Order: sequence, then structure tokens, then C-alpha cells
Amino acid sequence: MTVIMQEFPLTVGRILDHAAKYHPNRKIVSRSVEGPITHTNWANIQRQAKKLSQVLLSMGVQTGDTIGVMAWNTARHFEVWYGVPGAGAVNHTLNPRLFADQLVYIINHAEDRLLMVDFDLIPTIENIWDRLKTVENIIVMTDREHMPESSTLDLLCYEELLEKQDGNCEWVEVDETAPCGICYTSGTTGDPKGVVYTHRSNTLHALASSAPDMLGLSSNDVVMPVVPMFHANGWSLGYTAPMMGSSMVMPGRDMSAKGLYEMLGFGVTFTAAVPTIWMLMLQHLQSNNLTLPTLERVIIGGASCPRAVIETFQNDYDVQVLHAWGMTEMSPVGTVCTFKPEVTALDASGRLDAQGTTGHPPYSVDLRITDDAGVEQPWDGNTSGKLWARGAAVVQRYFKQDSDAVDKDGWFDTGDVATIDENGYMRITDRSKDVIKSGGEWISSISLENAAVAHADVAEAAAIGIPHPKWDERPILVIVAMPDKSPDPQDILALVAQSFAKWQVPDDVVFMDELPHTATGKISKLELRKILNNQGYELP
Amino acid sequence: MTVIMQEFPLTVGRILDHAAKYHPNRKIVSRSVEGPITHTNWANIQRQAKKLSQVLLSMGVQTGDTIGVMAWNTARHFEVWYGVPGAGAVNHTLNPRLFADQLVYIINHAEDRLLMVDFDLIPTIENIWDRLKTVENIIVMTDREHMPESSTLDLLCYEELLEKQDGNCEWVEVDETAPCGICYTSGTTGDPKGVVYTHRSNTLHALASSAPDMLGLSSNDVVMPVVPMFHANGWSLGYTAPMMGSSMVMPGRDMSAKGLYEMLGFGVTFTAAVPTIWMLMLQHLQSNNLTLPTLERVIIGGASCPRAVIETFQNDYDVQVLHAWGMTEMSPVGTVCTFKPEVTALDASGRLDAQGTTGHPPYSVDLRITDDAGVEQPWDGNTSGKLWARGAAVVQRYFKQDSDAVDKDGWFDTGDVATIDENGYMRITDRSKDVIKSGGEWISSISLENAAVAHADVAEAAAIGIPHPKWDERPILVIVAMPDKSPDPQDILALVAQSFAKWQVPDDVVFMDELPHTATGKISKLELRKILNNQGYELP
Repeated sequence: MTVIMQEFPLTVGRILDHAAKYHPNRKIVSRSVEGPITHTNWANIQRQAKKLSQVLLSMGVQTGDTIGVMAWNTARHFEVWYGVPGAGAVNHTLNPRLFADQLVYIINHAEDRLLMVDFDLIPTIENIWDRLKTVENIIVMTDREHMPESSTLDLLCYEELLEKQDGNCEWVEVDETAPCGICYTSGTTGDPKGVVYTHRSNTLHALASSAPDMLGLSSNDVVMPVVPMFHANGWSLGYTAPMMGSSMVMPGRDMSAKGLYEMLGFGVTFTAAVPTIWMLMLQHLQSNNLTLPTLERVIIGGASCPRAVIETFQNDYDVQVLHAWGMTEMSPVGTVCTFKPEVTALDASGRLDAQGTTGHPPYSVDLRITDDAGVEQPWDGNTSGKLWARGAAVVQRYFKQDSDAVDKDGWFDTGDVATIDENGYMRITDRSKDVIKSGGEWISSISLENAAVAHADVAEAAAIGIPHPKWDERPILVIVAMPDKSPDPQDILALVAQSFAKWQVPDDVVFMDELPHTATGKISKLELRKILNNQGYELP
Repeated sequence: MTVIMQEFPLTVGRILDHAAKYHPNRKIVSRSVEGPITHTNWANIQRQAKKLSQVLLSMGVQTGDTIGVMAWNTARHFEVWYGVPGAGAVNHTLNPRLFADQLVYIINHAEDRLLMVDFDLIPTIENIWDRLKTVENIIVMTDREHMPESSTLDLLCYEELLEKQDGNCEWVEVDETAPCGICYTSGTTGDPKGVVYTHRSNTLHALASSAPDMLGLSSNDVVMPVVPMFHANGWSLGYTAPMMGSSMVMPGRDMSAKGLYEMLGFGVTFTAAVPTIWMLMLQHLQSNNLTLPTLERVIIGGASCPRAVIETFQNDYDVQVLHAWGMTEMSPVGTVCTFKPEVTALDASGRLDAQGTTGHPPYSVDLRITDDAGVEQPWDGNTSGKLWARGAAVVQRYFKQDSDAVDKDGWFDTGDVATIDENGYMRITDRSKDVIKSGGEWISSISLENAAVAHADVAEAAAIGIPHPKWDERPILVIVAMPDKSPDPQDILALVAQSFAKWQVPDDVVFMDELPHTATGKISKLELRKILNNQGYELP
């Protein structure tokens, strides 16, 4: 049959077009990098993004070229978010907190032709400039007044460049499966790996993850992404919010609880961040007797959120907490913990238990758990297994790799270990490489750690498996004590024993002054094993 | 670049797969055609649909074959809804209320190889059987016990056929742009025209129209489609509800207010129908002192809904009314009237005014209004123009036609005349062919009719344009009086004059005993003009 329905390529420019035409006046409030609070809207952002497309095309940017963007969460970042793919180019988000070696690696690996950088981050680029192989120009995302001096770099001024354009153009036409953005994973081992998002994957992901049972965004929402736009596709909020016509509040670079609280004052109804941010916010609220009059929902992801934090937000501040799980490789939303009818029907305590999981997937994401042999495991909420995912916005192959990142049936190994219950609610119990395998059974290192830190004198805990001739591995706990405290190892183990079977209780407790951490703040168990090895550690 | 994100063809089988895996136990309650209330769920429907696919394949059905389905809204209809495209075939929905000539035309035109028919509708098929050219078999959608006797037809029993299969199969793989369903428009002039939905258009339409600001469906909703599944793609609820994991209540063939009220008792939170149904329901509620304890939202579409009905539902029954507009050609959702922030900010009366419009489009639908010369008209809520649409699930070309149904820029002429206000809220003011053009200005026939029927003694009113040498056309009103009433024409015109400019007030009032109607119950203005012509009518 000939074409019978209209062609409608799923390119991201159409998302901003929809926002600018049907929600032109939604406010976009930013704490600018220059300092002042700025106000704009989707119609203006579209105009600016089109001007940026014109600038890029005039500079000779070609379809498929990669452009590195190192910027905080502001309205100007949205102009770039759409202006770059609007010129047919690929938006490569750069995390300014990466180690210099990692930044150099990913910029060279992605072959960024151009960098767009917030003015305060220019020193970061100066520091690595002589090692960058492909970058031809640097655009500083500010006006003439705030342009930094640089003895090593030639810098172009964003606002000056845009002023010369009229914004009167169409987006460059690309296939919907063309690349739109790249985000590198901050892998704890080996080089970072690039995940390439396509126009189609970003659009389908935004459609599916905006659903009422997922993020549930509407034009009456005011969305504040605390999670940086350079982290895991910005949790997709740069696509979902304009697609649904939401307003946005952009907190800039000030991640202090005080700074974020000020920004919440612009009518924020929905916000998203890692647990640490919310724990600091709670302290700020409590010690200053503050309320959250407009906030309705917070999405918490990136790590497990303590039950007490969820409870306090909901009971004391009337803010619904949505635990979520995702990965850079999944664009990123994998699951969101909203209530299915089976959970709605539970009492308050049962619902809170459910909220300890990361919830269930949207349409277009599919999950399974298997044992090491690849045999699918039951969804009973107890049996854990390797977690696999597939879907419309899940990676098939990392950037420039020779082979796919999926198995023969198209499943991507998330590297997590999880349980799934009979209602489809998933709970991460460990990273695959951290799970402790003893006597053929798996012990969750995360659960052991959570149990240990419940001890008042324990500041930080790491559970790792130590090779054992009979049991394959046996768990031990590595503990950092609270300042000036010396908890009794037997007390800690007794506390753990309250919620674990006898064979799961660690064989030993080792004390250290501090634990090794990765660039993103997670405990580096690889490093920890090396340290113990160098110390000649042996099981008792 | 090579494939970097996973392939995920947007085929409708994946929608049911998602429902069956992540929402297996959502209840699907039906008033069966056989009589009893039946209970099933998405997991069972998936199994039955797979069995049906097996049956069809075993009967020699090929990818792309068209299968006519004439059935009421029941769970079994869902099995067919997915089982037919699951076998690679195309689901051609048949409206049993069509005239015999129209049914014969569309079955022959679509070349249906097979018919699947509810058992009570077999006489309708017997009546046209000798004129059908392509149908090889008829499957009666019932069990052995309820199989009808037929002297003219060889009938196969649905449940018997399915019992022989195990349901252990994959959906037949087709391209996402392959046809999935066909629905013919009941055009008032000329032959019916077929709109062919693809797997992709149905999936994208369901994703976009489920959004919080559109239908807003979740797994906690219990959805009752009163609108028949054979009408305009079943308003897409057969796709949106399982995609969002909703429960469903299927009212079967009993469209009485009493029958529907019984079905609402199964916890229905969301329902959809034309205004007539809701007006009858209101009478039933009021005369029996009934309440609507679980119902939260009703979608009203297909025609304009009186303000009083909206007000009564909301104020007396705490049920939110969502006015909507769509077309068979648009899969069908074009706009839904939810509140953007500008409307949320209005007082109760202002919000009710906004609810008189049909609202704003989802992502992936775009609208414009133009004058006859194709010049785009302003969005001021007053200026009316021809309404055009384009989008991911809007028709490009009718089935088996030689040319496209869109203009050079891809816009489809809806045949409606509308205004759009500054917030993007659209109001249908007329059908293009019915709008009255006087002195270069347009007068809305619908508005004149609404004003005239406000007269207590007027039962029905039609406003039409009569050719006029100076003004091009002048409006007149054709009135059917209430039984035993003889309203004064001057009184009617005085009432109309209260809300129209002087030049818009009709030049004449003509009385008739009844007005001609189309098969779908609309006033046939074509027929009405013929009648007046035959009577030698002339303007005063």
C-alpha cells in the first residue's frame, strides 16, 4: 500500500515547536550563571535556538558533527539543547566535574568540533586545551560583559553571535534515527563509553515517560531539574517538560539547599534529584522551620533513598516521593514508583514498603531477571537476579564499538542485581560486580551496608565478598566509624543479624579511616579490594 | 553511524504485551452479547488474541489481508482487536447501523476475506450476503451454545476454533508502517472513504493522547468506552487503556441509560460517549435520585455538548467533563479540553466558557485556520476559518485513492470551520459546507441553531444559506415545533437577535413536520435543500 498516514519524523525540534506554538508563555525561570534570576518562555527559547542553529550552520557545522556542551541548568542550556540538533549536529553533554583525563578522552573520542561552555567553566577547558585534538572553536555561553579573559584560548561570545541572526529558519531535516545527543558513562573501570541518543529514541522516551503513571507532567506543572542536564540525558526533562507544555525553573550552579529552596519559591510543583540533595534539603527545612507550599512531587533517583526521607517528605511536607531508576544507557528512565491499584489498595505502611522499590517500567521498556546461567527468575519480590532491559530508548551499541552491548535476544545487561515482585515492582539489590556469592546463593552488599549504617556509631559501611575455598565467597564489612567513636564489631554484626539469615551475616568487620570513592562519589569497591589485598587481608 | 539505539518497531501487539506483562490482572468486565456479565483480564485477552492469530494463520490469512469485524464493545472484541493485526491482517471495523448499500460497498471495497460477527448481527450479514464479492468465511463471535441457525450462511464458531489452539506463538512481524486497521467515514455525500491506520500511527496516537493533559489514563483508571469500537477507531481507547494498564468495563450492546448505569457500578472512573448518551444519563440519574460514586471524568465528543450538561455533571455529580474533538481521519483525537494554566487561573464561569471549546491538541497534532484563499487567520477566539490538521496519525491518502487528501504543505482539510483563541483552544463553529456566507462574512449555522432551539416551543432547528443576488447567501431557519405548539416566527428571530448582529439574523423562518437525517442521526442539509428546492422556496 502507498503512504496512507502522514509522515511525521520523530525529530526533537518538533518537541520545541509544539511547546512554542501551544504553550508559548510558560515561564522559564533561571538562576543565571552570571548571577541574576532571568525570565523567559518557550516561544523565546525556540527563537534563540533557531538563531543558534543559524550561527552553527554559518560556522560550517555539518549534519552529524559533534558539539561538546559544558553548562549548568539554565534557560540558555535549553537553547543549546535544541539549537545543536536543530542544525543537524549532535549535542555532547560534558560533566565539568569529570577528571581532566576523562574530559580529554571523551572530547577527543567524540571528535567534538566545537565547545559551548558556561563562562565560569573556561578554566576547566584552559586546563586541558593542549590535549584536545578536534576542537576548532569555543563559544562562551554569556554576553559580552561577562566574557572571560583567556591567554590561551580564542573565545567567541554566544550572545553576540546570536544577535546577528534573525531566527527565521527551519530545523535542518534529518532522519528520525539520526544521532541527536551523546552522553558518556562514568564507568568505574576502563574508558568512559558513549551512549548515542537518536531523535527517535529521545522522542519515544519522552512520550512514554511523561505518562500519568510515570512522571505525569502537565502544562500546570512547574518542573525544576536539580539533576544536571549533563547527567544521564538530563533525566529527559529537557524533552518531557516542553512536550507536555510544563513551565520550568532552572537552578543554575547553586546546589545548596538554601539556593534550591529559593528557586522552589517560583511555584515549583515537580522536581528531580539524587537522594543526597533531598536529605540536605530536609535538614534545611527543619532547621529553618520552612514549608513547601507549591511542591507536589519529587523524583528521587540515582541511588536508593532512605525510607525515613520518603516518610518525612510525605507526612510532614505533603510532597509525594517517586523513587525512580534509570541509566545513561536507557535515556534514562527505566522504572518509576507510582502506585498501581494493587499498591493503592495497601495500608500506609504497605505503600511505604512499595515505595522502597524503584517501581515499574513505562510502555516501551521491558525488564527481566536471570541467574548467572541466563535462566529467567521468578517475580516474587525475593529471588534476585541479573537485571536486563530492552526497549525503544535502550542502547544497542556503545559509540564507536565493534560489537553490540546486548545479547542475542536484544537484552542489555544493566550490571544491576534486582528482585521484581508479582506486581512488577523492581528493587535494585546490588551491582552485579558487588554481589556476594556464598554457597551458590547471592547476598546483597547494599542490604548489608544499609543494615550496618543503622548503627549509631557507624559513618560509612562497605560490604564485599572475600574468596573462600568452600563457600566461593564470604562477606565482610569495612566500616568507617563516626568521629571519636569505636563501635564494637560484635554489636554491628548483631544488628545485621536481626534482618539476615545466619549464613548471610558477614564473617568479619574491618575498620578504616576512610573508604575510597569514585569521581561521582560512590564507594570504589575495586579500589577497596586492592587496599585489602595490599594489606594482606585474610578471612578469620 | 551504525544502529546505536535498539530497534523497537511501533507495532500494536507490543501494547497488549505490555498490558499482559505489567498489568496482567486488571479487570475487564463486559456485558456479553449472550447476556451475562463476564470477567477477564489483560493476560487472558493476550492469550485469546494469540489463539485467534493462530486460527487466522491456519485458515490461510496472509499479511495485509483485510478482515471485517462487526461487533459490540465486549472483551471478545479486544481479542479480535489484537488477534487480527497480530496475524499480520487488517482489522476493518463494521458499523452494523450502516445502510445495507453502504455495508456492501465497504466490505467489497476493502476486499474483506473473512467476517467476524457478533451472533445477534448475523441477520444483517444474511441480508447482504449475495452481494458480497470477496468474503470466504464467517466466524461468529460466540460459543457453540449460542451459534445461530442460518439457511444461507456457513458459520464458524469462534470459541470452538480458539479452543483448538494453544496461544503459544509470537505476533506476525510486520513493518511499523504496515496497515493495522481500516475505518470508513460515513460521508454524507458520495461513497464512504476508507482511512487506513498503521501500527505506527495507532501507537504514536495512543502515546500522545494518553498524556496527563489529554485523556490522562493510568493503571488506577477503570475505562468504559460507550463509543463503539467501530466508530472512529474506537476513540483509540482499545490502545490507550492497555498501554496505560487501565481496567475496562465494556457495555456490550445495551446503550440504555439504565444499562450503562449498571455498568458504571463496576468502579468506572473514566468514560467516553457522544452528548446524547450523557443527556439521557442525566435524566436517568435525576429521575431515580442516583449518584456517580466512582466516576471522575467523562469525555464528550462527536458533537457539541450543551453548557448546562457540563455544569450539571460537574456541580451536581462531581464528574469532570472533557469536551473533545476528533475525526476518523485523525485516529481520532484532535483536541481535548483540559485546563492549561491560563484557564486554571480563571473563575468558575470563565473555566466553564473554556469548556465550551473542544480544547487543545496533544503533541504530534498541529492545527491552523485559514480563509477561503488559504491565508492563515489569527488565534483570537473570534475569527473563524477553515480548520486544517496535520500530524503523526492524520490521514495522508484515503484507501485506494489516486491522490493525497492533503495540500502541498501536508495539511488535511477537516471540513470544519473553527475559531482558535490565544491559548490555543479550538471551537468548531460549523461544517465548511454548512457555513452561511453573507456579504463576504461567515455566519455559523450551528450557532444560529443553538440560539433557535433555546425557544421552549422549538424541537429542532436547521439554519441554511439561500442564494441571494446581492449578499451571495442569506440565512433562514427551518424549524420543527414541539408537539401541539405553534411558535411565532418573530419570537424565534427575536430570541436569535439577542446574541447575533443584525445582519446575521435569518431572513425567514420555515416550519416543517420533520427534518431529514443521515444514517448517523445528523440533519442532512443536502436533503433539506433539495426539499426546499422542490417546494419552490424563495426568500421573502
